[in-house]
Amino acid sequence: MASQPPLKRLSVEALDQVLGVPFPVLDDGFIRAIDYMGSDGAVVQAARVSYGEGTKQVLEDRGLIRYLLRHRHTTPFEMCEIKLHVRVPMDCWRQWIRHRTANVNEYSTRYSIAISAQQQTSAAGWRVQAANNKQGSEGFLPKETGELLSQKERQLHRLSRQIYEERLAAGVAREQARKDLPLSTYTEAYWKVDLHNLLHFLALRMELHAQAEIRSYATVIGEEILARWCPAVWEAFLDYRVHGLTFSRLESEIIQHIAAGKLDEAVRLVVQSGWLSSNGAIKRHRERSEMEEKLEKLQLPIPWRTNK
Amino acid sequence: MASQPPLKRLSVEALDQVLGVPFPVLDDGFIRAIDYMGSDGAVVQAARVSYGEGTKQVLEDRGLIRYLLRHRHTTPFEMCEIKLHVRVPMDCWRQWIRHRTANVNEYSTRYSIAISAQQQTSAAGWRVQAANNKQGSEGFLPKETGELLSQKERQLHRLSRQIYEERLAAGVAREQARKDLPLSTYTEAYWKVDLHNLLHFLALRMELHAQAEIRSYATVIGEEILARWCPAVWEAFLDYRVHGLTFSRLESEIIQHIAAGKLDEAVRLVVQSGWLSSNGAIKRHRERSEMEEKLEKLQLPIPWRTNK
Amino acid sequence: MASQPPLKRLSVEALDQVLGVPFPVLDDGFIRAIDYMGSDGAVVQAARVSYGEGTKQVLEDRGLIRYLLRHRHTTPFEMCEIKLHVRVPMDCWRQWIRHRTANVNEYSTRYSIAISAQQQTSAAGWRVQAANNKQGSEGFLPKETGELLSQKERQLHRLSRQIYEERLAAGVAREQARKDLPLSTYTEAYWKVDLHNLLHFLALRMELHAQAEIRSYATVIGEEILARWCPAVWEAFLDYRVHGLTFSRLESEIIQHIAAGKLDEAVRLVVQSGWLSSNGAIKRHRERSEMEEKLEKLQLPIPWRTNK
Amino acid sequence: MASQPPLKRLSVEALDQVLGVPFPVLDDGFIRAIDYMGSDGAVVQAARVSYGEGTKQVLEDRGLIRYLLRHRHTTPFEMCEIKLHVRVPMDCWRQWIRHRTANVNEYSTRYSIAISAQQQTSAAGWRVQAANNKQGSEGFLPKETGELLSQKERQLHRLSRQIYEERLAAGVAREQARKDLPLSTYTEAYWKVDLHNLLHFLALRMELHAQAEIRSYATVIGEEILARWCPAVWEAFLDYRVHGLTFSRLESEIIQHIAAGKLDEAVRLVVQSGWLSSNGAIKRHRERSEMEEKLEKLQLPIPWRTNK
Repeated sequence: MASQPPLKRLSVEALDQVLGVPFPVLDDGFIRAIDYMGSDGAVVQAARVSYGEGTKQVLEDRGLIRYLLRHRHTTPFEMCEIKLHVRVPMDCWRQWIRHRTANVNEYSTRYSIAISAQQQTSAAGWRVQAANNKQGSEGFLPKETGELLSQKERQLHRLSRQIYEERLAAGVAREQARKDLPLSTYTEAYWKVDLHNLLHFLALRMELHAQAEIRSYATVIGEEILARWCPAVWEAFLDYRVHGLTFSRLESEIIQHIAAGKLDEAVRLVVQSGWLSSNGAIKRHRERSEMEEKLEKLQLPIPWRTNK
Repeated sequence: MASQPPLKRLSVEALDQVLGVPFPVLDDGFIRAIDYMGSDGAVVQAARVSYGEGTKQVLEDRGLIRYLLRHRHTTPFEMCEIKLHVRVPMDCWRQWIRHRTANVNEYSTRYSIAISAQQQTSAAGWRVQAANNKQGSEGFLPKETGELLSQKERQLHRLSRQIYEERLAAGVAREQARKDLPLSTYTEAYWKVDLHNLLHFLALRMELHAQAEIRSYATVIGEEILARWCPAVWEAFLDYRVHGLTFSRLESEIIQHIAAGKLDEAVRLVVQSGWLSSNGAIKRHRERSEMEEKLEKLQLPIPWRTNK
Repeated sequence: MASQPPLKRLSVEALDQVLGVPFPVLDDGFIRAIDYMGSDGAVVQAARVSYGEGTKQVLEDRGLIRYLLRHRHTTPFEMCEIKLHVRVPMDCWRQWIRHRTANVNEYSTRYSIAISAQQQTSAAGWRVQAANNKQGSEGFLPKETGELLSQKERQLHRLSRQIYEERLAAGVAREQARKDLPLSTYTEAYWKVDLHNLLHFLALRMELHAQAEIRSYATVIGEEILARWCPAVWEAFLDYRVHGLTFSRLESEIIQHIAAGKLDEAVRLVVQSGWLSSNGAIKRHRERSEMEEKLEKLQLPIPWRTNK
Repeated sequence: MASQPPLKRLSVEALDQVLGVPFPVLDDGFIRAIDYMGSDGAVVQAARVSYGEGTKQVLEDRGLIRYLLRHRHTTPFEMCEIKLHVRVPMDCWRQWIRHRTANVNEYSTRYSIAISAQQQTSAAGWRVQAANNKQGSEGFLPKETGELLSQKERQLHRLSRQIYEERLAAGVAREQARKDLPLSTYTEAYWKVDLHNLLHFLALRMELHAQAEIRSYATVIGEEILARWCPAVWEAFLDYRVHGLTFSRLESEIIQHIAAGKLDEAVRLVVQSGWLSSNGAIKRHRERSEMEEKLEKLQLPIPWRTNK
């Protein structure tokens, strides 16, 4: 064994070609891949250790990756690791850092002068508070209103930077001078994460209800970096997680009735669950609305609506 | 504020009544709850901190818990914690300990004499290797064969214990004397885990493909302990996770066609995905078999079978 | 066993008396304990599971806790858990959240209007940038300078709040309107952590080089909450971690020489290690300065200084 | 920026030369490095992101690594990652797996036939139970006794393997047939860990009180793999962690008195702390014995012994 030549380290040419190259995000942010360990092949290799030789014949690599992802056998995905360098507004970073299973080194404004850049909003970029979703937005304000807001924003950015610099000039410690920087101030960090936890991050942050800013970063990581690094994992992730549909016990029963043409039975179940008024009248109900969206995706009828 | 009386600590009467009481598992194991923090109410309280006052009117507590679980908003569940005392064969513990996000103190056979009990298999309890699932079992061996195997098992248990005790008597260090104890030897541990990670454990270990031994433990934790501790969480967990169904992008498209009566279209898609031979002949294909099970649960036709 | 009465849940009277009571920190922050699991006794109980009966006679509880802490046997401390409610400026929270092994639910400014309070600096409270420590501060600016800085600070707080409210009034989504709030804006969170990780947090954040703001929070947690909750752990923590001294291999050798009166040998070693110029002249060297501080604590002579 | 050539991935020639090459451990185990990310340079790079440009001039790379390790600034070490392939007895693996912050794929004896090898003890390899340390061993049994024990061991290994194979032949499921394998049975796993957590593992497992088996593995990882991969980190780790000495508040005060020649004061403190009988007589006391060892390392007198 000892006389064998050493292993050649796994590398992924498609990712090597963009290593260190910044992909722009927002007005002044970026993401770039700095280093990585593993690939599609390392996922397969790890699974084969667990599952032994027998599996080899039955499932080829792509099939095995799909099987692992479908059944949430997560440990083989942990065998891959990636290190990114990101530049991102602190407001967005506050969400990002909530993902705890990652390694982080952030630019320190105790040691160094804060980066002199804030995320700026264009006149057309002011989003309207969503009516039905307390945490969301929908559409944009008219440009004239936006113009005014953007002007005020620039004024605030200038003033807060000026005050920051006055403090430093007066001899205030950096750790204290920074205290009133706006949340829109850019920061930079190395962010290192294993593939399993990266997929979890992407599932939550590429999602429609994620805030637009972090969704931009997640989408770039997925489409520009992960797609090059582990193409088979990326494909399976899209099929099972991003475009997958999940139904609860109750929803499965309702679908059974609908598919069997027993629309009255379906409505009866829905009323009984409190999703409709007892007279069948439609009231606002979050879980029912969510199911209606799923029925539309399946192109199935919604009996309590078509019934009327 | 300081003049207010202190908060009364949250407690759950239904769980207090069984605190410390061992629920038997396997032939000589048990689980008992030792302490806990939080309850259904603490999940709700944590979510309300995040979501603020506005949410209060719309969703009552049970509805909020269902919403959180459905949308995998996991952090409020982490606000609850439970500490269990378990007695379990080392073989089973080897699987258990793979769940890393828990706190553990295990009985040490370096410090103390190993527990003198091994998991014993009754003559009727020998499971047959599954034909289609390399990691599973199905049915039991005939009792006569089992009789013989159980007898040999007892003999091996006796011999290995005897050798263990001979080593101790000869002065061998406990840490080394234990090296040949059978994996069936019981160990004990405190296991402390937050509710989110407990649900994850239960989802994986109450599942049909989990090994029978650990499934017994997981089921007792769910039905005897969690159901008393956080009944609303337990109910939602059963509805969404245990009895939920998930479909990939492809499966959703196939269901669309089936529900619309376009069975040929469905078959075409399945062939095109390599799930059937190009002539429509049925071959062994894991992902297709899994989908067939799901179609049966929804009581939908399986066009490539009914077609024949 | 089943016929025994259930266990009574462990509680700590000294902590119960302040449960929910806010301890003020900074100008508008606070910390309060909401719930807990375990105590000094639970640490001991967990250790006894690992170490078995034999240990009982030798070490009483307090001694066992000291032994565990001294030898970094950390798992028994993980058996205790505490949940705090904190109100803290976002700038300070950015440091706090870097401790990943905790459970967190933070007030969401996507769902709700941001808290209308910023950490304000008094005229006498502006700290001067440290000369020798890039990340530190030392002393305060003269009050007249501070007066001016505090006035500007108030102006900035008013303007940024006004702009925030204008955005909301114009219909901007909360998730976007908040983007330019100053880092000094207060937030609130539930923070739940086990005792081992709490000690780690305190060791780093009560330390002299930690930023003053987070040091205030850490000190209140230690002195007001932990001291009531687990007094024996708190005592051992102060003795071994907070007031402990650690020496490297080289430092140990230098101390040997000093204690043996061989001051020339000590100097020779220090020169040889590059901590002094080759002619024995004193130059700036961080590791040597750190050792000098430790020698002073031990009231040992510093040969390369006394030599002069 | 986009027109720059991509970064070249960091690699470490000294480690590349032994990549995949198994280093033997115990009678039939091994460790080999499979892949890695980062090096000494990546630690430095990550620290520089946090500390900014200013630090560059003051500390060169080796000095910065020493500074980080000395002050337990752990995050830069997390930027390095290594993946090992290990073959290890299950008994030893039970200790290994208790380090939770690592990624693991273990050979599954549900899927595959258990490895046909057990750790065997030579006649001269039977360790004696330590008298003073309940969890330790000291010295070896006489070879004649060992001969007998080794013979019995071989007999037990044969019988348990034979029974295992009989079960498989009878059709018992692999997941159940394995239940009585001895703990000495070898298993294999991929183990992936970041450098910070690897150092923590090594600090605990290279330590004198760690069990001989896992100490062998830890030592090989340190001396054969880490020393090649990150030589500056390895050097600093030995100086500060492995060969470092830590003193509590009380110990520091005692040393002060000793170094100042006030031996009576030292003894008074020790008596007052309950480390000696009130009449100064020496009794068994663990913490005092530990301090005596440290005083010997510093070549300082032990006043309560020399006093007599």
